[in-house]
Amino acid sequence: MQKGIMQYKIGDAFDGFMMIKESVKGLTSNGKPFLTLILRDVSGQIEAKLWDATAEDSKVYTAEQIIHIKGEVIQFRDKAQLKIFGIRPAQPADGVRVADFVEKAPVPMEELQEKLTAAIFEMENPALQRIVRAFIKKYQEPLLLYPAATKNHHEYASGLAHHIVSMLAIARELSLLYPDINRDLLYAGIILHDIGKLKELSSVATPTYTLPGKLIGHIPIMVEEIGKVAAELQIEGEEVLILQHMVLSHHGKAEWGSPKPPLVREAEILHFIDLIDAKMNMLNRALKNVRPGEFTERLFAMDNRSFYKPLFEAERLPSQKQELSHNHN
Amino acid sequence: MQKGIMQYKIGDAFDGFMMIKESVKGLTSNGKPFLTLILRDVSGQIEAKLWDATAEDSKVYTAEQIIHIKGEVIQFRDKAQLKIFGIRPAQPADGVRVADFVEKAPVPMEELQEKLTAAIFEMENPALQRIVRAFIKKYQEPLLLYPAATKNHHEYASGLAHHIVSMLAIARELSLLYPDINRDLLYAGIILHDIGKLKELSSVATPTYTLPGKLIGHIPIMVEEIGKVAAELQIEGEEVLILQHMVLSHHGKAEWGSPKPPLVREAEILHFIDLIDAKMNMLNRALKNVRPGEFTERLFAMDNRSFYKPLFEAERLPSQKQELSHNHN
Amino acid sequence: MQKGIMQYKIGDAFDGFMMIKESVKGLTSNGKPFLTLILRDVSGQIEAKLWDATAEDSKVYTAEQIIHIKGEVIQFRDKAQLKIFGIRPAQPADGVRVADFVEKAPVPMEELQEKLTAAIFEMENPALQRIVRAFIKKYQEPLLLYPAATKNHHEYASGLAHHIVSMLAIARELSLLYPDINRDLLYAGIILHDIGKLKELSSVATPTYTLPGKLIGHIPIMVEEIGKVAAELQIEGEEVLILQHMVLSHHGKAEWGSPKPPLVREAEILHFIDLIDAKMNMLNRALKNVRPGEFTERLFAMDNRSFYKPLFEAERLPSQKQELSHNHN
Amino acid sequence: MQKGIMQYKIGDAFDGFMMIKESVKGLTSNGKPFLTLILRDVSGQIEAKLWDATAEDSKVYTAEQIIHIKGEVIQFRDKAQLKIFGIRPAQPADGVRVADFVEKAPVPMEELQEKLTAAIFEMENPALQRIVRAFIKKYQEPLLLYPAATKNHHEYASGLAHHIVSMLAIARELSLLYPDINRDLLYAGIILHDIGKLKELSSVATPTYTLPGKLIGHIPIMVEEIGKVAAELQIEGEEVLILQHMVLSHHGKAEWGSPKPPLVREAEILHFIDLIDAKMNMLNRALKNVRPGEFTERLFAMDNRSFYKPLFEAERLPSQKQELSHNHN
Amino acid sequence: MQKGIMQYKIGDAFDGFMMIKESVKGLTSNGKPFLTLILRDVSGQIEAKLWDATAEDSKVYTAEQIIHIKGEVIQFRDKAQLKIFGIRPAQPADGVRVADFVEKAPVPMEELQEKLTAAIFEMENPALQRIVRAFIKKYQEPLLLYPAATKNHHEYASGLAHHIVSMLAIARELSLLYPDINRDLLYAGIILHDIGKLKELSSVATPTYTLPGKLIGHIPIMVEEIGKVAAELQIEGEEVLILQHMVLSHHGKAEWGSPKPPLVREAEILHFIDLIDAKMNMLNRALKNVRPGEFTERLFAMDNRSFYKPLFEAERLPSQKQELSHNHN
Amino acid sequence: MQKGIMQYKIGDAFDGFMMIKESVKGLTSNGKPFLTLILRDVSGQIEAKLWDATAEDSKVYTAEQIIHIKGEVIQFRDKAQLKIFGIRPAQPADGVRVADFVEKAPVPMEELQEKLTAAIFEMENPALQRIVRAFIKKYQEPLLLYPAATKNHHEYASGLAHHIVSMLAIARELSLLYPDINRDLLYAGIILHDIGKLKELSSVATPTYTLPGKLIGHIPIMVEEIGKVAAELQIEGEEVLILQHMVLSHHGKAEWGSPKPPLVREAEILHFIDLIDAKMNMLNRALKNVRPGEFTERLFAMDNRSFYKPLFEAERLPSQKQELSHNHN
Repeated sequence: MQKGIMQYKIGDAFDGFMMIKESVKGLTSNGKPFLTLILRDVSGQIEAKLWDATAEDSKVYTAEQIIHIKGEVIQFRDKAQLKIFGIRPAQPADGVRVADFVEKAPVPMEELQEKLTAAIFEMENPALQRIVRAFIKKYQEPLLLYPAATKNHHEYASGLAHHIVSMLAIARELSLLYPDINRDLLYAGIILHDIGKLKELSSVATPTYTLPGKLIGHIPIMVEEIGKVAAELQIEGEEVLILQHMVLSHHGKAEWGSPKPPLVREAEILHFIDLIDAKMNMLNRALKNVRPGEFTERLFAMDNRSFYKPLFEAERLPSQKQELSHNHN
Repeated sequence: MQKGIMQYKIGDAFDGFMMIKESVKGLTSNGKPFLTLILRDVSGQIEAKLWDATAEDSKVYTAEQIIHIKGEVIQFRDKAQLKIFGIRPAQPADGVRVADFVEKAPVPMEELQEKLTAAIFEMENPALQRIVRAFIKKYQEPLLLYPAATKNHHEYASGLAHHIVSMLAIARELSLLYPDINRDLLYAGIILHDIGKLKELSSVATPTYTLPGKLIGHIPIMVEEIGKVAAELQIEGEEVLILQHMVLSHHGKAEWGSPKPPLVREAEILHFIDLIDAKMNMLNRALKNVRPGEFTERLFAMDNRSFYKPLFEAERLPSQKQELSHNHN
Repeated sequence: MQKGIMQYKIGDAFDGFMMIKESVKGLTSNGKPFLTLILRDVSGQIEAKLWDATAEDSKVYTAEQIIHIKGEVIQFRDKAQLKIFGIRPAQPADGVRVADFVEKAPVPMEELQEKLTAAIFEMENPALQRIVRAFIKKYQEPLLLYPAATKNHHEYASGLAHHIVSMLAIARELSLLYPDINRDLLYAGIILHDIGKLKELSSVATPTYTLPGKLIGHIPIMVEEIGKVAAELQIEGEEVLILQHMVLSHHGKAEWGSPKPPLVREAEILHFIDLIDAKMNMLNRALKNVRPGEFTERLFAMDNRSFYKPLFEAERLPSQKQELSHNHN
Repeated sequence: MQKGIMQYKIGDAFDGFMMIKESVKGLTSNGKPFLTLILRDVSGQIEAKLWDATAEDSKVYTAEQIIHIKGEVIQFRDKAQLKIFGIRPAQPADGVRVADFVEKAPVPMEELQEKLTAAIFEMENPALQRIVRAFIKKYQEPLLLYPAATKNHHEYASGLAHHIVSMLAIARELSLLYPDINRDLLYAGIILHDIGKLKELSSVATPTYTLPGKLIGHIPIMVEEIGKVAAELQIEGEEVLILQHMVLSHHGKAEWGSPKPPLVREAEILHFIDLIDAKMNMLNRALKNVRPGEFTERLFAMDNRSFYKPLFEAERLPSQKQELSHNHN
Repeated sequence: MQKGIMQYKIGDAFDGFMMIKESVKGLTSNGKPFLTLILRDVSGQIEAKLWDATAEDSKVYTAEQIIHIKGEVIQFRDKAQLKIFGIRPAQPADGVRVADFVEKAPVPMEELQEKLTAAIFEMENPALQRIVRAFIKKYQEPLLLYPAATKNHHEYASGLAHHIVSMLAIARELSLLYPDINRDLLYAGIILHDIGKLKELSSVATPTYTLPGKLIGHIPIMVEEIGKVAAELQIEGEEVLILQHMVLSHHGKAEWGSPKPPLVREAEILHFIDLIDAKMNMLNRALKNVRPGEFTERLFAMDNRSFYKPLFEAERLPSQKQELSHNHN
Repeated sequence: MQKGIMQYKIGDAFDGFMMIKESVKGLTSNGKPFLTLILRDVSGQIEAKLWDATAEDSKVYTAEQIIHIKGEVIQFRDKAQLKIFGIRPAQPADGVRVADFVEKAPVPMEELQEKLTAAIFEMENPALQRIVRAFIKKYQEPLLLYPAATKNHHEYASGLAHHIVSMLAIARELSLLYPDINRDLLYAGIILHDIGKLKELSSVATPTYTLPGKLIGHIPIMVEEIGKVAAELQIEGEEVLILQHMVLSHHGKAEWGSPKPPLVREAEILHFIDLIDAKMNMLNRALKNVRPGEFTERLFAMDNRSFYKPLFEAERLPSQKQELSHNHN
């Protein structure tokens, strides 16, 4: 397997392809134009400065462009930066595709799909099962491709499906521990809760917020769509209302975007499963990048906390040391 | 015109019909059952205690029952109370109807309907006009009958239409003062903003919250319905999205029930017009009940403030003194 | 099995033993003394008024006294109340004990102990295991007897052990789903997190706050005690500090009583497991008391929300209808 | 009419006069001194950097200095910047005055004065009218010249008078819609509410906060002055107290600077009229700078929101497209 | 010295004079009128119920009426209550005056006056000294008579002067410890900070809020008056502005009623001295009523906390036990 | 006495020794490495940039390194900066020590120790006195050397002891003014309240947070240690618990790090004395750097306020003008 950018250390030379995730024009304090490029491959991302950028450069080096770059990893304000020695846009002959540079869920798409299908198969309530099936059918492709968010957690290809499948696993176990939980309802809520993001976000590779995403948001978008799908399926029981409520309330509080707080047991537990999986995703990835005895960088979406990896983790996971990236040398 | 209960003073005898708005069972500290009745007529409401209530009484004296009552207005903990000397349920022969005991908007229903129609007629944007017309047609009857809320402001029959028509009048003037305002959009937002309450509230006379009202709320209910109506009318421009946004954002802040704050000029102004008309409605009615030089009772929905009526109001409105009710003697 | 007080309906006659949980003196509005008694058996509690209470009565009918009572279940302000026809203190010959009237965890004490032992047996980190064992040994008896709180959740005999064992079950599953979690650390944190309550609360049957409970609180009490136990065991690695941190941070935020927020992965997940088990405990017990289509009473510790039990729960759990108590007739 | 700086596009050459609004010394990262100049004309403002600034430059190029400048409009971090090719201070012979470079209210001063006079003429309450007249007489000149604030809304010459006149227009209409409003009181409150700013702010062209402005603020300053003016006029009725209350409470809440919230109807409505006119002023000016389908820049004083201009505004206002400035090319 | 009401125990007979502080009409649950009387003497206050009150009684037994009463101290809901056996209004021949029943500061008025005079004599800044002297002269009598508040702290006759004098003592010591403090300024701020209360409160014996107190409040009232007094004295230096700022900011934060926070050293320290003296006054009086090992009642103005008196206070203050009142028997 | 860096004005040449307090690597916008050095001597600190820094420089010029530097004081973004002409690490022959460059308390260490000893000598309660003595003995040296914090207040050598001694002086006076205060308890609380900082902070010269400081914090650390010390001394009375409570509650509120608010009189007063001394320390030092008529820089730990020094301070302290530093020229 090819070495990703996150495996480079300060001082290492780089010679290979990367994708531009973001490109911002700037002026030096002397008034010279330059480009700040956020470059990425599957392992993560790094910043680079293209000094003395021409007007032409500004047009060529834009988001989703793949480039070939030669340079060196240097340190700038406590972060790694890629110093550019040479840069050129990729050519068809290079045989590289955007999909090769996008971070993907750690679980293969096929496995995600199987697990999703298996969960739906377990469901017994016909109304809930039919609604869920209709959504899966309608959004089959993007559901398996989209990230769960633009940043913070599961912000990679297939992130949404990965998030759903992890939540389903927690739900399965909690349903066994607390048998009063209506598992069908909880499964349905989990699978549908964030599907509105497929309309809120613009694309898989470089997602931004769409106009409906900005003005309405994925929660009301999805409440509306559940009503529509249920009407098309001519389903009329209380299941429709309860499912809409679960989506509506899954952020937990009005100030977090849910006009109603959870008022049904499964809505309450859905909110917590969502929180746990999002936090574990952020935390585990941040802790992978530090050695025992160190603190992570500040995690904005976790109240800006830095987390500590205890020294005794070293004994538990001796293999972990090799994995460390250029952030620490 | 018949004297309403709010015109009675402490010590006055009462002999007439009233409607039970609410009936709650209680036990005296000696363990005797009694009923606390909230009685109302068009002028307002008063509490009464039915001592030594039988099981039969509990079944007869319930909400929406009209009763004939003899008694005296007494004072209990700074509030007027009706002391019951005799009580019986109204008979068909009495010729009294629920509608006779419900407070109504100060503007006749026909006038409200005309003003609503006139506003829609003024609209030029065909998409907005067609959507508004479809809603008016669909909800013609309840829209003219429902209150705007269960308490606080416009909580009387036709209250919703009264609120809409007052808001349209403000909107018309502000559109002249600030010509940048898109009046069609503002009118459409005003007319539709609270129509979800027709599904949120259970009835005109004694409204309570429905299950969809409790679990979803009138705002997402209406966002969904605008989408549905627009789809039926095959309207697809940005008007649909913007109208949904106006309804979604009209409470102004997430913690007040709007998952998105106003992000369009007319949504911002809609929020303020809604606030002004609601506050003027509460304030003017509370101030009518006090004399110059007095403070109103605390108004819960206005941060629990008591408002002062200046002494010089006496010079401005010498006729106002007669209107005062039993709260002040 | 004997019928508990929670199985009585309004109108049922009662003739049996109960324990006084709380006794408060009052005066009627006529100046007559009476006692408000909170009576309990294993199924739950009910209020009763002892009218015309003598000075002698005030001394006899106090907390933890078992009484024989004859009466009738009546309704007072939407709640059931026991109307007293006859009352006397229990005699030795009655053969009744306080323990018979205290609500117990739904899992037998032996099973709780076994599960606790099994979890400790699974632990591999010797420092963590030794500290946990020392605490279990030191507090063996109260740990199995105490409630987890005076009210809200797990507020019954063995409630603390029940809470710990449920949390361990969730922890086991989450450790499998997220293998990065240090299960030993999480287990140790769960077992110790609330042991300070054994010093914060005064007793099993009618727990109140002790002076150290009021002035220091169970969290700093336990931080101190972990330090002391570790010193006695001559354990000095980072495990001691991390365990103290887990206890210190398990309420999640400064305003909830944790001077430091979780800064270690397992501390973060401990906080969430604690929340989930407490909420499921409150919610499931509240929902057991209502029928499908009804809302629970307001749950103070869950932001004062009333939760809805969907109608389709009836299909899932047809047997549940019989279980309903006197709150609903 | 001459082209203002806001009409220049990126890449346009500039050759003309501007006024320095602010001048801040800086050092490049190489330790070379430079000046950051905020330049303005009537259409708006733009930033410019004067590299290699001499000590002499620092003394010459200061606030309120008019300069002749040659340069080019470039883009720096998403904002336009004026790149300087040549610069010199204006000479008497250039015939330019500070007043030519200050943004002015869109309504001529004479019209503002007339409208103000007309409103006072409408007033019937002699006490209120005399107090208002005394203030108008005392502050005639600055009242017509001052901005309403240093930034955010009506921050241009005659901004205060423009704000007052707009508010009076809204007040007139609301008084017709809600006849209970005491129009004289509302007019008086509107005219006086912000006059304290004449002492809070230092000047018309480059206003900063005075020492009384910083230590006392315009609200208590004005409460004191109303008392003083009324005493001089020997007016003693409740009107004085109520007027002081209106000024004191017009920010609406203690945390926004009003030690008492509005407790009189006209004080409440004054607060809302103030909010509406300020927001419409900010919003309309921000929306003028964007095309249909675009969002405005973030508006700090409106909770940092970006507002959207709907696409269908294009149909309503086809003439608007030409007005767009260099921010969009 | 006569035994005050606070020295009576539950069960004691009472036969003497008291003053009515408050009289509220009520109805029993059987509909019988009664009066709730708050009775006071210099030692404190007690509640009494006058059952079967006639219309005549309602007129006679009102605030500030002195009565002769026979009765017994009983316990009602954990508080002492005076059960009335006989009651009559005091006659001129009884020789009792309102002033005999009002709680007074623990320091004689003459001593308060002397200390105040001494502090002013210490001042060296002529402007500050002249302003302070003018206020002392203007308000000489009420300043020595008024309470500092209607409840919470120093709510007794001469309470305001007592509060000022205590604060001056703290100020003197802090000025010695931190010589940078401008003692003259701090003294002036302390003496003037609450003088606005003489206009905010209606009377010494049964103070309520005046209309200016409700609509403006003592802080802006005093800012205005300092301006007026300084103008009369023709004092114009910065001292006037700074003194106004000290009064304006002495509540510390906008949400506590100070539109500007302290921005001058002495204003900051004034705020803290005010807090300390108010808190010590509340706390010491509450702790006097409990024995070592007990908690005080909840103190509303101290975040509703109950304070603990340590057991070892018994050793320090063995004489304190006798002082305890009927709250504890 | 040698001139400290804070006495240099903009434009002055510098040639002498300083200590590096902090060294941060950076890259210019052209990609050249440089070091940002925070340099200090006893008078204060100044920033300097070392351009074109070699890898060797990064290793040599680190925290606590003493350097000899030649340069000039320049102004950069409103702050003074030291422009480097020449730099070299100090040699043994230079005879300079770290202690020479650290700011010290304005009171000599011996005097601090004497005052501390005197206060303990005044104590009468043997339990409290013995505990305090044990701590003083245990931490004698660091207690006299450590700062009270890393920034904001008393952030200099011996700062902790200086803070304690100032607080003891206030406590002595308040105990005289309010004789109910238990002075022994207050003294003990003051002396111990921040001793946990000796474990929270890493060193005297360049203090950072230790791992226990980050994960537990000085408050719970000290609660634990008081328990341990008391156990060693076999002291068991309520004094131990109350002392722990005083330390635990001295930040006043849960959100400020105290899981229990003060619930004992002396805990409440300790909290206020701590606040006053910290604020006076910050404020007096900030005001020393400005002239009458000026505002201080914003003080982050005082809600980001700028404080004003009145003009009339000039008359009171004519000698103060000479003391002004390079911040003002």
